[in-house]
Amino acid sequence: MPTPWPYRFTQNAKSTQSSAIRELFKVTANPEVISFGGGLPAPEVFPIEAFKTACDKVLTTNGPMALQYSNSEGYAPLREMISRQMDSFGLKLGLDNILITTGTQQSIDLISKLLLNNADRLLVEDPTFLGALQIFGLFGARFTTVPTDSDGLQTELLPEAFRSGPQFMYVIPTFQNPAGVTLSLKRREALITLSDQYGIPIVEDDPYSALRFEGETLTPLLALDAARLGTADGYAAGNVIYCGSFSKTLAPGLRLAWIAAPPEVISKLVQIKQGADLHTPIFVQMAAYETLRDGFLEKHIQKIRAVYRERRDVMLAAMDEHFPKGMEWTHPAGGLFLWARLPEGMVSAELLRTAIKMNVAFVPGNSFFAVDEKAGERYFRLNFSNMKPERIREGIRRLGQAIGEAHKV
Amino acid sequence: MPTPWPYRFTQNAKSTQSSAIRELFKVTANPEVISFGGGLPAPEVFPIEAFKTACDKVLTTNGPMALQYSNSEGYAPLREMISRQMDSFGLKLGLDNILITTGTQQSIDLISKLLLNNADRLLVEDPTFLGALQIFGLFGARFTTVPTDSDGLQTELLPEAFRSGPQFMYVIPTFQNPAGVTLSLKRREALITLSDQYGIPIVEDDPYSALRFEGETLTPLLALDAARLGTADGYAAGNVIYCGSFSKTLAPGLRLAWIAAPPEVISKLVQIKQGADLHTPIFVQMAAYETLRDGFLEKHIQKIRAVYRERRDVMLAAMDEHFPKGMEWTHPAGGLFLWARLPEGMVSAELLRTAIKMNVAFVPGNSFFAVDEKAGERYFRLNFSNMKPERIREGIRRLGQAIGEAHKV
Repeated sequence: MPTPWPYRFTQNAKSTQSSAIRELFKVTANPEVISFGGGLPAPEVFPIEAFKTACDKVLTTNGPMALQYSNSEGYAPLREMISRQMDSFGLKLGLDNILITTGTQQSIDLISKLLLNNADRLLVEDPTFLGALQIFGLFGARFTTVPTDSDGLQTELLPEAFRSGPQFMYVIPTFQNPAGVTLSLKRREALITLSDQYGIPIVEDDPYSALRFEGETLTPLLALDAARLGTADGYAAGNVIYCGSFSKTLAPGLRLAWIAAPPEVISKLVQIKQGADLHTPIFVQMAAYETLRDGFLEKHIQKIRAVYRERRDVMLAAMDEHFPKGMEWTHPAGGLFLWARLPEGMVSAELLRTAIKMNVAFVPGNSFFAVDEKAGERYFRLNFSNMKPERIREGIRRLGQAIGEAHKV
Repeated sequence: MPTPWPYRFTQNAKSTQSSAIRELFKVTANPEVISFGGGLPAPEVFPIEAFKTACDKVLTTNGPMALQYSNSEGYAPLREMISRQMDSFGLKLGLDNILITTGTQQSIDLISKLLLNNADRLLVEDPTFLGALQIFGLFGARFTTVPTDSDGLQTELLPEAFRSGPQFMYVIPTFQNPAGVTLSLKRREALITLSDQYGIPIVEDDPYSALRFEGETLTPLLALDAARLGTADGYAAGNVIYCGSFSKTLAPGLRLAWIAAPPEVISKLVQIKQGADLHTPIFVQMAAYETLRDGFLEKHIQKIRAVYRERRDVMLAAMDEHFPKGMEWTHPAGGLFLWARLPEGMVSAELLRTAIKMNVAFVPGNSFFAVDEKAGERYFRLNFSNMKPERIREGIRRLGQAIGEAHKV
């Protein structure tokens, strides 16, 4: 006899769905399936030996500290290392500008707790990262979207969007997820100017920018905003909250990321983080620092770039060979993803059913559109970082076949 | 020239304060200070060598998995180990009853996201764990409190409290933080019956129960609720959400804990956890499992018990020797804390100022009272797990002196 159900879930929790990607992750656990669906780094580039040595050293020399409770701000040497990474952009961040988090997903959660009231309006790109949409949705956000093209966010449409009164704008300027496009320098400058003019903060999500295959590095929005304020400011009162991550440069399984922002914002986020998980596992912070210090990170990034560049090239070549006419796709200069559009009349979510039968998977585009899911129905996202070249070739061949079959129907 | 401040913090974020304990943690970083203020385990009992061996083994045999993205539910062998821990109470939990979290602070955060709307009412003990009050406050909870005595929560006052319409009751039944008291079996049964009668879920926070120094183990509320439902149920629709933790039995710096609840609750919490940090660092989960498996945990807990029992005894003896007449304190049968009351007319927050000058610290009682802070002003919490016996003796001597001096004034 069933007992009465005592739980009254909140409305936002009730409407929360498991992300399409996380669910796909389960299906594609089958090793027969070639999955371009996740955002998984290549396990071949994980610095397992270096990390093992670092764990051993941390536990041997500093075990009690590595296993004890720690402060919520994060491990000071790691924060110092992070702040020095921004030096090349002329930005002098202090320790009080940096908070260590348990992955960018947590960074977004903490920022949402700081800035989002239920039913607040929020500006996002169309399309954008669905993991962010999921958490914003849990906080009851209503979305205004700004479309992107091959130069990223269309900043000429921003003034109207800013006038809708959003709490902040969430943007992925470099090698955007899902589209793989990068916001041009001119548009970055326009975004910073408009953000200041309208008094709307920008949350800059930047997990991929280190993974550039070609072309020149573009200045992050945080550094452009600091330049606007002048270097004497030391980023005391800027408009940008920057989210960095070690998931794509070290390893995602460690859940290690950071937020850089004005000290007053960081100090409030520290209090909110106390309530979220007290602190990011200190052992992981110390072992990551020990792994990455003394130039290891920079050398390691070179290695990842070479591997991912080859995989992108292999994927693009295979798409040229196997995909039918009437299709278009982006040519990312870095990162993990590219974004493809099916011929008119085709729907990517329907294609996925055919594709899975042929043991190949991707993420349909509709989930990346915050308001009008239908706008994404011809699109899909492909990840090129996780599979070895021969699997990429075979997967794109299968996918081309699936598209061909679905196209005939 | 200052730039206009674009950030509009939410009302709940604005009213969030750093917890008194976290702030004290900074002051007491000074090694001269003998701090009874934190809730820190003894670093001497951390199984550093065993954990180091486990890290090495995990990275050697399963490095790519340990560093890659993982599922949100948590590492299956660890969840299996956790569910088997409850077998001795006749409770057969399945994997779908268990979610791994990044510390109990996160467990409480996820449960709050599931159940707390802004301005919802919540039932808590008086006094209770202030880290929980902090996170509930961030969700805008309003509190109803139920007083405790030496047998824990006064359940005869529950019917009236339940009629105030709380979303749930948060309770720490065993070796309660801060009071060190334990809810009697009779009261546990009354709580379970009333929870079912009024349809109010119970969140059972149980980080300390393994650390029992004497007397018989009491059945957790989760298992009593399962017994009410009958074993055939498999805990499909119970009223209790149980929060367990490895912070006090393995190491807090790893941030490793779990929630046990009906599958429908867990499945919603899994979605919410996706938004909070995707998953708890999988490397940490695997290394913890590898450390604790094959009976290591049970043997290790015996060792911790012996160390903490001695420290409790040393503290109680020193209090008998150095504390003035007119004071009272609890005699906990386990856990990490005891709870003392100053002579009439004295205020523990004022005493703390004197005490810190004499290089000894504790947490004043007022922070542990959700509604009427004044009710806690004569109380303070002492932690006996973190300091070695000679430091405990010296700290209590100093504290006795501080009390004596404040008493004279």
